This record gives sequence, structure tokens and C-alpha cells, in this order.
Amino acid sequence: MLKFYYNPISVNARRVWVVLLEKQIPFEPILVNLDGDQFHDNFTAINPLQRIPAIVDNGLRVVESLAILDYLEAKYPTPSLMPSEPEAIAVVRMIETITVVELQPATIPLTRPLVGLEVEPWKLEAAQQRVTIVLRFFEELLNQQTYFVKEEFTLAEVVAGTLVPSLPLEDYPRLKAWSERLTQRESWQQTVAHPEAIEAALPNIRKILEHRS
Amino acid sequence: MLKFYYNPISVNARRVWVVLLEKQIPFEPILVNLDGDQFHDNFTAINPLQRIPAIVDNGLRVVESLAILDYLEAKYPTPSLMPSEPEAIAVVRMIETITVVELQPATIPLTRPLVGLEVEPWKLEAAQQRVTIVLRFFEELLNQQTYFVKEEFTLAEVVAGTLVPSLPLEDYPRLKAWSERLTQRESWQQTVAHPEAIEAALPNIRKILEHRS
Repeated sequence: MLKFYYNPISVNARRVWVVLLEKQIPFEPILVNLDGDQFHDNFTAINPLQRIPAIVDNGLRVVESLAILDYLEAKYPTPSLMPSEPEAIAVVRMIETITVVELQPATIPLTRPLVGLEVEPWKLEAAQQRVTIVLRFFEELLNQQTYFVKEEFTLAEVVAGTLVPSLPLEDYPRLKAWSERLTQRESWQQTVAHPEAIEAALPNIRKILEHRS
Repeated sequence: MLKFYYNPISVNARRVWVVLLEKQIPFEPILVNLDGDQFHDNFTAINPLQRIPAIVDNGLRVVESLAILDYLEAKYPTPSLMPSEPEAIAVVRMIETITVVELQPATIPLTRPLVGLEVEPWKLEAAQQRVTIVLRFFEELLNQQTYFVKEEFTLAEVVAGTLVPSLPLEDYPRLKAWSERLTQRESWQQTVAHPEAIEAALPNIRKILEHRS
């Protein structure tokens, strides 16, 4: 059975978890505690980068959430989470990439004060500006549609939808309605991080963020 | 004709440039100077994120290099740069993602001293460790093959191959030989950044890096 290395407070792991549920792929969840488990030899053998999520499927090891999602889509194509038209592919890939390379790094300075770490004011301001630019762009791309590709639930929802709903969305009515649609899905409700889990993880989050800027 | 917004010193733009050449897609190159052109309204209208590369093809705007590569692959499928087997897709996507989210950010602290900016010793050391971990993993994935997917030239080569060859590869004989194979390709030779271009861009690079940590 597919082995899924995860932690319930990880946004990156949640993406994979949502897809495993949406595609109804049987899997064995393996909890990786973020207080040092990720540095142990047995996990480093699976992911030398020492990050979750990772999967092992029929002996094949795949790491990095976006790579895992594309592997699962190719290996378990039903239901499909990727459109086939070039224009729609462009939209899904833009949402996925911008979420991971722009939005997610920008949320790090915003998280620091929440775990009692200092952050320089210019970094906080730059991060907030960056979040605003991304959310405006997403609001424009979403337009009046149900999902980023019309009525089609895709990896754009999976990737942006596990991060965007945790941000303040008062100024983005379309994204707000879209977030509410997603959080009603069973795959979102089954994978939501419980407040106690987050509370318990705060010291680990603090430790991880201490070594990032 | 497809419009390609680029700058010759941008690794991110070069990826797209290489694919345009490999697929022999006719395009109009539009130079975006990095001394402020990227913040002008006319460019912001194309990419609100104010980054190169961007393309406009038949009125469709696509931003973020990885998204552009997937759009081009879907729209101009010959020659194919993506494998179709799930296991090979996993490898290509791992290489692409790790290059962009792990390796590229790690090279930023390493670049700072080259443009006369300070960098804290612990950040430099952490970045060097990160680069080592990634290159070891890539060396292992490459194995004895010509390319990351056996004899097949794919987006893994395009994405990693526009960054890895600029790093010291003495300890990675397979990656070194692979880099030499790539830099002999016409698409690499036509898109290489000339030393004068890099020299002229140093003040802009410095300015951009000043606002990153």
C-alpha cells in the first residue's frame, strides 16, 4: 500500500492528503514528528531533503508536494484533477507555482510574530505587499467562476485551497466564496489541522522559523 | 507571434528561451531591463508579480517559468519534453521543483558576496549545506544515465540544466558530464549570458538582492 509521510500541521503535506482522498487511493499514513524525526536516518533515506510530505508507492519514492501531485495524477488518473487544454493548463500551473514560490514564502514573516519571534518591520511590510499582489491576481483569475478552470475542480484548488483560506479575505469576495466552497468538501474537513494540534506544534514551528529569515 | 519578455541574465527566463528554441517556436523577444522596467505599468499589466519571464501567446498571458514550460509543452507538443510514464514524470517533476524551491533560493546567499553585499556566516553555511544535499540527490537520481530519464531530454534538463552547470561540480562527476553534454547543445550556446552582460547587470543584481535575505 502507498505510504504517506506527513504531519497534520503541514500545508505541503495536506495537499497530497487531499488528493489521496479525492482520488480514493488507499494509503498508510506515517506520522513524522517535526521535533527531529525528519532528521533521522530512516527518514533521510526516503527524503534526503528532510522534508515532508514524501510517498513511497510500489517501491518508488517521490518527494516535493507538487511532484507527488503530478505523479498521483499520472498513476491514478480518475477522477482527473488536471485539465487537458493548454490555456487551462497555463492557469492551473500559474496558481500552483505562484502559491508555492511567491505566496507561501511571503507568509513566513507573517507567521513569526505568532510564535513569539521578531521580524523586521520592512520585511513584514514587504511580505504583506506580496500577499496582496498575489491575492489580487488570484481574485482576477478566478473571475466569476466556481473554480479557477470554470466548473472543474483541479490541482489549482488543491494547492491554493490549502493555503489561501487561512489568510484574511475580506477584500477578496470571490476568493472568500471559493474558500468556503472548498472547506465544505469532505477532503478538506477530513484533513483540517485541529487547533490543539497547531497549539502543540508551536514550539516546533518556532524552532523551524528561527533558522529562516 | 508569441511575445517573450526576458532578460539575458535571468536563469528563470533562460529556461523558457531554451524551450522556445528546442521546439522551434517562432517568437518576438522583448527585453525587460531589470533597472526598473519590471515595475512599469505596461509590464505590470502583463505580470502583476513584476517578474520575468512572461509570455503572451495569441492573447493569452502566462507567467512563472514552470507554468510557461507546461503551457508550451501542451500547446506545442513536438518535440516532446515530458515523458508519459508516471515513474518518469515523478523524476522530472522532482528535479524541476527541487531546483526552483530548494536549490535556487540556496544560491542567493552565495551570490551576495559576489556583488559586494554582506551575508551572515551561518546563512552562508546553511546555504552551502543545502546546495550539497541537493547536488548529491541529483547525482544519485542521474545515476549512469545520459539524462534524468534515460536517453530522453526533458524539462528536468531544461530546469536544472540552466542552473546546475554554474555551480562547482568537482565532487559530482555524473552531473559534471551531464552539464558538459547540455552546454554543447545549440539551445544552451544561443542563450548563454555573456560575461559583459553579467558585469553590466551587477548593480541591478545587487539592488534586487539587497531586499532579500
